[in-house]
Amino acid sequence: MSKGITGRNEDYSQWYNELVNKADLAEHSAVRGCMVIKPYGYAIWEKMQGALDQMFKDTGHSNAYFPLFIPKSFFSKEASHVEGFATECAVVTHYRLKNDGNGQIIVDEEAKLEEELIVRPTSETIIWNTYKGWIQSYRDLPILVNQWANVVRWEMRTRLFLRTAEFLWQEGHTAHATREEAVEETERMLDVYATFAEDWMALPVIRGKKTETERFAGALDTYCIEALMQDGKALQAGTSHFLGQNFAKAFDVKFTSKEGKLDYVWATSWGVSTRLMGALIMAHSDDAGLVLPPKLAPIQVVIVPIYKTEDECKQIGDLVDRLFMELKQKGISVKYDDRDTQRPGFKFAEWELKGVPVRVAIGARDLQNGTVELARRDTQSKETVAQTGLAGRIEQLLDDIQQNIYQKAITYRENHITEVNTYDEFKQVLEEKGGFISAHWDGTPETEKRVKEETKATIRCIPLNNKQEAGTCIFTGKPATQRVLFAKAY
Amino acid sequence: MSKGITGRNEDYSQWYNELVNKADLAEHSAVRGCMVIKPYGYAIWEKMQGALDQMFKDTGHSNAYFPLFIPKSFFSKEASHVEGFATECAVVTHYRLKNDGNGQIIVDEEAKLEEELIVRPTSETIIWNTYKGWIQSYRDLPILVNQWANVVRWEMRTRLFLRTAEFLWQEGHTAHATREEAVEETERMLDVYATFAEDWMALPVIRGKKTETERFAGALDTYCIEALMQDGKALQAGTSHFLGQNFAKAFDVKFTSKEGKLDYVWATSWGVSTRLMGALIMAHSDDAGLVLPPKLAPIQVVIVPIYKTEDECKQIGDLVDRLFMELKQKGISVKYDDRDTQRPGFKFAEWELKGVPVRVAIGARDLQNGTVELARRDTQSKETVAQTGLAGRIEQLLDDIQQNIYQKAITYRENHITEVNTYDEFKQVLEEKGGFISAHWDGTPETEKRVKEETKATIRCIPLNNKQEAGTCIFTGKPATQRVLFAKAY
Repeated sequence: MSKGITGRNEDYSQWYNELVNKADLAEHSAVRGCMVIKPYGYAIWEKMQGALDQMFKDTGHSNAYFPLFIPKSFFSKEASHVEGFATECAVVTHYRLKNDGNGQIIVDEEAKLEEELIVRPTSETIIWNTYKGWIQSYRDLPILVNQWANVVRWEMRTRLFLRTAEFLWQEGHTAHATREEAVEETERMLDVYATFAEDWMALPVIRGKKTETERFAGALDTYCIEALMQDGKALQAGTSHFLGQNFAKAFDVKFTSKEGKLDYVWATSWGVSTRLMGALIMAHSDDAGLVLPPKLAPIQVVIVPIYKTEDECKQIGDLVDRLFMELKQKGISVKYDDRDTQRPGFKFAEWELKGVPVRVAIGARDLQNGTVELARRDTQSKETVAQTGLAGRIEQLLDDIQQNIYQKAITYRENHITEVNTYDEFKQVLEEKGGFISAHWDGTPETEKRVKEETKATIRCIPLNNKQEAGTCIFTGKPATQRVLFAKAY
Repeated sequence: MSKGITGRNEDYSQWYNELVNKADLAEHSAVRGCMVIKPYGYAIWEKMQGALDQMFKDTGHSNAYFPLFIPKSFFSKEASHVEGFATECAVVTHYRLKNDGNGQIIVDEEAKLEEELIVRPTSETIIWNTYKGWIQSYRDLPILVNQWANVVRWEMRTRLFLRTAEFLWQEGHTAHATREEAVEETERMLDVYATFAEDWMALPVIRGKKTETERFAGALDTYCIEALMQDGKALQAGTSHFLGQNFAKAFDVKFTSKEGKLDYVWATSWGVSTRLMGALIMAHSDDAGLVLPPKLAPIQVVIVPIYKTEDECKQIGDLVDRLFMELKQKGISVKYDDRDTQRPGFKFAEWELKGVPVRVAIGARDLQNGTVELARRDTQSKETVAQTGLAGRIEQLLDDIQQNIYQKAITYRENHITEVNTYDEFKQVLEEKGGFISAHWDGTPETEKRVKEETKATIRCIPLNNKQEAGTCIFTGKPATQRVLFAKAY
């Protein structure tokens, strides 16, 4: 299990695959494109869910649940929406199997649905059809609802967490009386995502808007947070959409205002998914394995005993009992790895691979000296410290690690935003250095498309509050009013 | 919203439907058989999830996630399993839609799956196919995994929460080295369910085993908890299955024992679903609406101000601020209903309908007297009490209500277990009184089937540690060794 993994510099993609596998995070299932999230991986996802869910509730949202299936006709009601998702829909056509008489199980052709059902790739249509029944007057607004759910988008090329046919996510769907309120909500939730990424995942992100080409199918505006991975590629970590009145019009959802006027309702939707697991892994981990920010680590401290005699084992056990209690009281999750089937070196490697932030090793000499060996996963440094005050010291160390991981990531990110002024420079930086490239763009979808075709780089976002700066488009030489951020992306 | 609902005695079924709807718990969706769980209903489900999840973790289980889709061929591997579920499977056959050229969205026939995928009705097959890769030796055992997920069983006649095509549930799937360990786990989880039902839902349950006929498709033994609703019908509230080596054999999952012997792995699975919401509603609620046990109530205390002047309003507000803080500190969830668009009477009825356990009303006279009016939902009784020590009094009251609801339910249940010795008596009690009927049965599936056909009553369970008592079968007159519990059931 704790055999080495391929180095990042050797083959980044291979490093990622091996890490996900060997750290017991996830694996491919027998169903094409669908993953199994293993207990250790799921425990991290649960921590993410817990933190996000609390942030949603603190901003006034409630959870609800809407159907997995969407009638095909609903899908067709918002034109750009169906265009965006039609080519990746899993379709339910029958509702029964039968025995063919020769012992084979086959689909019962007599049980064909009158109207096919789509397995939700996202739930705007079924939700807005439901909201129609919930909204009559301004008194029914706003509706601030979120759902935690699985969705399916049929992908041809899949990668664990980053791109899978089925994935887990949350999708917020809100309804408002005014455009201003809806835009405010869209921005508020982008801010929640950014705060979560930075404070919990230790992942610095750039807040921005997508270009028209990259917008969500059915949105007037898509806001996003963009993060940078260690291979210089960008990853979209969350999106928040201002949907205008598009879905209200498609599903005829009107309300009576305070002034007695009838108008369509304004909408937002926003989501993050198990893709965040991919971002978390790729942003911080190293060649020894996973590096987890303490706030999201299912096990924050592991204690490994090193002993020769039964008596030493017992003495260490007593010490661990006390430490265990003290750490628990501080809300720190701790594991005592007292397996007698594995040697300490094996255990060290295994918990490094799994990204446990702090390791405490206690040996015979430590018993004599009143010390323990304290190792931190992020820097892989060790020190011998006193047993007295250890729990408090560990608590502080976990904070330090959380900060240090974030600082490391932000330093990398700052070193990988490069301003360029010519297309040659652009291509060179993209090839040799990677990261975000800040360059002038003439604002047309055509240019965006040509650059993507030639270099695989896309416009990740137009940063919020972007500095206005006249210049010329790196591709067409036409006048441009601002720089945007390009990158190759996951 | 707070208009009256049909009385239980008038039409129990109608009462239930109206209650679910008017208390904002759930509604039918546009997709046949699929429900929308509304925010207030979902908040109760979240409380249930939270408590159960903690109990699973306290008994050593971890969460994980397995695919929504199951290849048709997996399904066929365990013969009785496929027989049990084949007639209610939603089947995915295609993975793309397209525009037919006339503006219509149709299924793209070129995107037909080679093998159809079943939307999981339960996950034994996909999970045991996965466990095959996880288990080589006894060191890999036990595996104690749970998943929270949605499942689909195509039902022709649906009722909100009780029987829906899609529902939410948890399914535990464990793997063990010995039969004894697996049986022990099956019984442990039944016990967890029973404890949850009694301690959290205030719902007394009978622990028992299902007859062969009523067993889970693929199980050697199905344990269950059975609860009684106020209309005298039983409801199966949770099941725990001892699966023997059936799925290990179907998916060829073997392990090497400590002694170096190769053997098939032993399995259990166990689940409860959003059906529990139906049980919770039907067990305790009354003609005024929902009655929620305080431990599962999203809002435990509602405060309603009654004032005429601005000054009174402000004085009440100050008082509420203090009370609010004191209750929060005790971990009690409280809502201040200060809407100025509704009158107090309307608010009282609304929160009764929604089952909030405790209501505090504060008026002008209370300000003068240093009192408040305290009302409990379960008995609908009111008293005027001092403001001093109010938070502690409310805390105690919530405990009392939790106990009282349970006592009421258990008294009803005890009064509705009737011993009968003849088939005439059996039919009479079933018709006139309902509830559980304890009667001798000859132990054959044939008799069970005949009784069901004639009376619609089924054997709910053979209670655990059932008293052995020789007698004659009420239906056939043949010798019988024990009484079993019959009832009409949801």
